[in-house]
Amino acid sequence: MQNTPPRSITVLSGGMGGAKFIQGLLHGIRTGQVPAAADAVVTVVANTADDIWVHGLKVSPDLDTVMYTLGEGIDPDRGWGRREETWSVKEELAAYGVEPTWFGLGDRDVATHLVRTQMLEAGYPLSAVTTALCQRWLTPTHGDGLRLLPMTDDRVETHVAIADEESPSGRKVIHFQEYWIKLRASVPAEALVFVGLDRSTPAPGVVEAITEADLVIVPPSNPVVSVGTILGVPGIREALLETTAPVVGLSPIVGTSHVRGMAEQMLTSIGVEVSASGVAGHYGARSRGGVLDGWLVDARDADQVARIEELGIKAVAVPLMMTDHDATAAMAASAFELVR
Amino acid sequence: MQNTPPRSITVLSGGMGGAKFIQGLLHGIRTGQVPAAADAVVTVVANTADDIWVHGLKVSPDLDTVMYTLGEGIDPDRGWGRREETWSVKEELAAYGVEPTWFGLGDRDVATHLVRTQMLEAGYPLSAVTTALCQRWLTPTHGDGLRLLPMTDDRVETHVAIADEESPSGRKVIHFQEYWIKLRASVPAEALVFVGLDRSTPAPGVVEAITEADLVIVPPSNPVVSVGTILGVPGIREALLETTAPVVGLSPIVGTSHVRGMAEQMLTSIGVEVSASGVAGHYGARSRGGVLDGWLVDARDADQVARIEELGIKAVAVPLMMTDHDATAAMAASAFELVR
Repeated sequence: MQNTPPRSITVLSGGMGGAKFIQGLLHGIRTGQVPAAADAVVTVVANTADDIWVHGLKVSPDLDTVMYTLGEGIDPDRGWGRREETWSVKEELAAYGVEPTWFGLGDRDVATHLVRTQMLEAGYPLSAVTTALCQRWLTPTHGDGLRLLPMTDDRVETHVAIADEESPSGRKVIHFQEYWIKLRASVPAEALVFVGLDRSTPAPGVVEAITEADLVIVPPSNPVVSVGTILGVPGIREALLETTAPVVGLSPIVGTSHVRGMAEQMLTSIGVEVSASGVAGHYGARSRGGVLDGWLVDARDADQVARIEELGIKAVAVPLMMTDHDATAAMAASAFELVR
Repeated sequence: MQNTPPRSITVLSGGMGGAKFIQGLLHGIRTGQVPAAADAVVTVVANTADDIWVHGLKVSPDLDTVMYTLGEGIDPDRGWGRREETWSVKEELAAYGVEPTWFGLGDRDVATHLVRTQMLEAGYPLSAVTTALCQRWLTPTHGDGLRLLPMTDDRVETHVAIADEESPSGRKVIHFQEYWIKLRASVPAEALVFVGLDRSTPAPGVVEAITEADLVIVPPSNPVVSVGTILGVPGIREALLETTAPVVGLSPIVGTSHVRGMAEQMLTSIGVEVSASGVAGHYGARSRGGVLDGWLVDARDADQVARIEELGIKAVAVPLMMTDHDATAAMAASAFELVR
């Protein structure tokens, strides 16, 4: 753990929560609220296990949420998709009677998916496609100070087993997006199936972004279907054990619920207690073969600090509500301080 | 040539001109202005040589123009694409810097292309895809009285050779859509290349639609890049020679120009005189191995009737301006009368 301000910062991110955290982190670096080098480079390794092929288009929800949020193209109310969006394509697909109708496919968003799909079909890997798309969104706004990498170039998809009385087996397996968007995670997830995850390899630059980092951050993203899948790419856990950089995380759980998401259902499905310390225990201490050196919990969960430190993880309780960029920058600053 | 009203009518159509003619024909059948059987079935065999793959989408401009026009989804001012169209996808593709930017890809239209592309990629032939799309557009408006068939399920694309000083050969070959839309046919077409046409086969039902018809109509579509390509599918000319139905056409040229299109440039490029009789001569009399039994010219071209009849083609001069459905129905009625 260094005493010079970190210059190379790597964030393992899901969609909304991660994007919002990174936005505050970048704000904090710019304003000096966060003690990073002035020329710090933030590398975002984003989850791609939410990806879905829909209407012949390759959609990467987490990559796009990060890209649109940090490129100021996000719809700030919805928290996903494009601002000033129109919905003609979706209306028309419904008029043709084409399924699925529940997927939020905005017209502006469709253009991103068309570019991505066409580049993939021309043979470019997802990481190269992402770099190309980011030339529009991230380069103008952040220059060389921000990079976005998919966790892998391989096809990985999270599927969810749910009860289904009509099936002889008593259950059926659906894409995570169907579980999340169509069913709003309203039924228990009996099992999670990460199709392709165990055979995937980290995208170019991902391992180096971890092993050569000065600081690695696990933002308040979903511990199971966002950070969990990133950690599931063979080679990424190993890189986290190998790096000399400290690894610090921020709890997405405050009290007994997920602040901006539906992590409860996912944690329950894998038998993890829905609490800040439950998630810390799930990630585990790096000194004991796990992921974390430090863990931030919300001020309301201060009574869990001792329990987390017993796991071998430094912990501190601070306000963890990302109400605005300053509040989020303060969270990032606390994370930096905890592991220095 | 029968004396009972035709029940099975087949039209060899391009885009705008053909679609507008068929609209008037159907109106005339419904109102009794056109002497067809009350339960007449109109089969449209549409040109697909204008088709283009753009942004990974298969676009079939003539099929869509016919489908949208007859399904009342067309933009009546533009004459192509969807009414109440939005343009978010096009704006965004331009913002990504993706070429081509000149192609008119509306958001509602994109949905049609997504359905088509996905069905093609799933292995359905274009004719099956067209039938599926028409279930939305033509079945509700026309029931079983109207069928739309692509001329072929094979990939056929018209390309155009134009002068290019920068090329060592002095010319370059571009897709017909680039010539038509981007260049507005403003430079001479030195040659037309119908890629794939000579190896194509008629789509299922096309030959039968001609050989089993009671009347075949060549509407005022482009004689070179619309009707010409339909006639270029091996087997279609043979079917026209074989059928017992009379074949009657309507001149797209009035005076020395194309009423609603840019056929002049195309006729010039293949050395055909730009006149009603020039086009009649290009098609030729069926009795002499050509295509036509009858040919309608505009009232202003009445002086060409004798010359056309010398070619072995019955001819009559009537008003050929499709100003409204009634005027178009009157043209269709004249076509029916000429060959009965």
